[in-house]
Amino acid sequence: MEEEKKERLEEKSLTRRSLLSGAGKIAVVGAGIAAVSGGLSLFSRAEAKGTPLPWPYEKLDPDEVAEIAYQDWYKMLCGAAVISGIFTPLKKKIGEPYVSFPIESFIWMHGGVVGWGTMCGTQMGAAVAANLIAGPGVFKNGEKISNEVIQWYSDTDLPTYTPKKPKISAAIPKSKSGSPLCHVSVNKWMKTADKGFWTPERKDRCARLTASVAAHTVKLLNEYWKNGKFETDLKLPAAIYNVTSQHNCTDCHGTKVPEVNTTGNPAK
Amino acid sequence: MEEEKKERLEEKSLTRRSLLSGAGKIAVVGAGIAAVSGGLSLFSRAEAKGTPLPWPYEKLDPDEVAEIAYQDWYKMLCGAAVISGIFTPLKKKIGEPYVSFPIESFIWMHGGVVGWGTMCGTQMGAAVAANLIAGPGVFKNGEKISNEVIQWYSDTDLPTYTPKKPKISAAIPKSKSGSPLCHVSVNKWMKTADKGFWTPERKDRCARLTASVAAHTVKLLNEYWKNGKFETDLKLPAAIYNVTSQHNCTDCHGTKVPEVNTTGNPAK
Repeated sequence: MEEEKKERLEEKSLTRRSLLSGAGKIAVVGAGIAAVSGGLSLFSRAEAKGTPLPWPYEKLDPDEVAEIAYQDWYKMLCGAAVISGIFTPLKKKIGEPYVSFPIESFIWMHGGVVGWGTMCGTQMGAAVAANLIAGPGVFKNGEKISNEVIQWYSDTDLPTYTPKKPKISAAIPKSKSGSPLCHVSVNKWMKTADKGFWTPERKDRCARLTASVAAHTVKLLNEYWKNGKFETDLKLPAAIYNVTSQHNCTDCHGTKVPEVNTTGNPAK
Repeated sequence: MEEEKKERLEEKSLTRRSLLSGAGKIAVVGAGIAAVSGGLSLFSRAEAKGTPLPWPYEKLDPDEVAEIAYQDWYKMLCGAAVISGIFTPLKKKIGEPYVSFPIESFIWMHGGVVGWGTMCGTQMGAAVAANLIAGPGVFKNGEKISNEVIQWYSDTDLPTYTPKKPKISAAIPKSKSGSPLCHVSVNKWMKTADKGFWTPERKDRCARLTASVAAHTVKLLNEYWKNGKFETDLKLPAAIYNVTSQHNCTDCHGTKVPEVNTTGNPAK
């Protein structure tokens, strides 16, 4: 029964792909043959295409996703573990293109991009998954989901997820960052917990936070999947501030938030 | 001659792949067949694998890469255009896995992740390419290249690249951000140029900056390719500050930079 459902879904997905890209099916074979034969292919390699966006999806269990993401943090850190939490069950349910996706290549998201403390890697991992599954484009469905995840991350006492099989037994307190930045989020938690960066507690906090973000992202993806679109009241920051920005201006600028230069902008 | 060179490289790449993963070649075909036949495959889909990391690479021309990235900014914005600048010539030289890589799904990197002004998307696009090509892992070759790109971005008067076919004729001044954040980088440029965010000049500045970062990343990738590894004197920020961080502490904290909590950290 489970197999039959898979087959139906795959057929549906292929029909959709065929409609989107006439040569889609053959191009995938061509790419496979090209990779094996060292040159021979039905089409030239430059003509072959990957799976059209958005990628096929099926409803996931946020708790299952969270536990995978938690455990995988210890193998590949925050951003890649969010992707792994979401793609691991999709590999089983759907197969390609999830099976071939290079999840581990996204380890670099850790620590706000190679440890620079900028955007927390969990939200970048969520963005990879959301924009592949709900489709890319400026403030299209994938970005609307990303925007919601980032706002939720900033506003929520994290981590929300308690692992089924915790790696350590110590209690892990929660903290609210008010910002999507790794540097701010981690420092606020370190202050709340009175623990340094290199402690097992801080590491497990990041693993649980990774699980929390993966689960929340999947809740939004399930909503998108159910409705065929994602609706939100949140705007893109530049539409509010006339420059890319977080919403917590005074955290860095104090009370003297400088005026944004709007010289030459077209009239609204 | 050019074709022969390609064939040799592909054979070399396949031999390497076969060594890394015994079933690699067949698994790629299996994945292809599975995608076409709606269920039938030599191996179960969960067993199929993508191209092992690091991905094959061949020396690229930074100027060619820069011009592609510049033009593609107008189609897919900063992060995705850096990936496109690097992967477009690799699609021609090497073929898969570059042909199937979903470059456009990374549009979300724009504006420091969906417009939140955090890490400038160019450096995330550079990280995607560097970690696929030079290999992932905490402070392995790919991350060492990323770390250098981020430091260079912060320290350099940007943009450095002047397009062969510019989209606008206005002069585009340079500015130094001192930070990898989109919000800081764009605001400093807007002040220098006295231009608002929605102007053609600001957009073209971001397109030229995208080209500059793509070209610099490729210079470092060529160095890695030549030497088989990437050497750097730069450390990961957390190894210096005991927390993830940029290096421009006073920009946000003023002169009162708070002490980092090191409670419970293991002795060095």
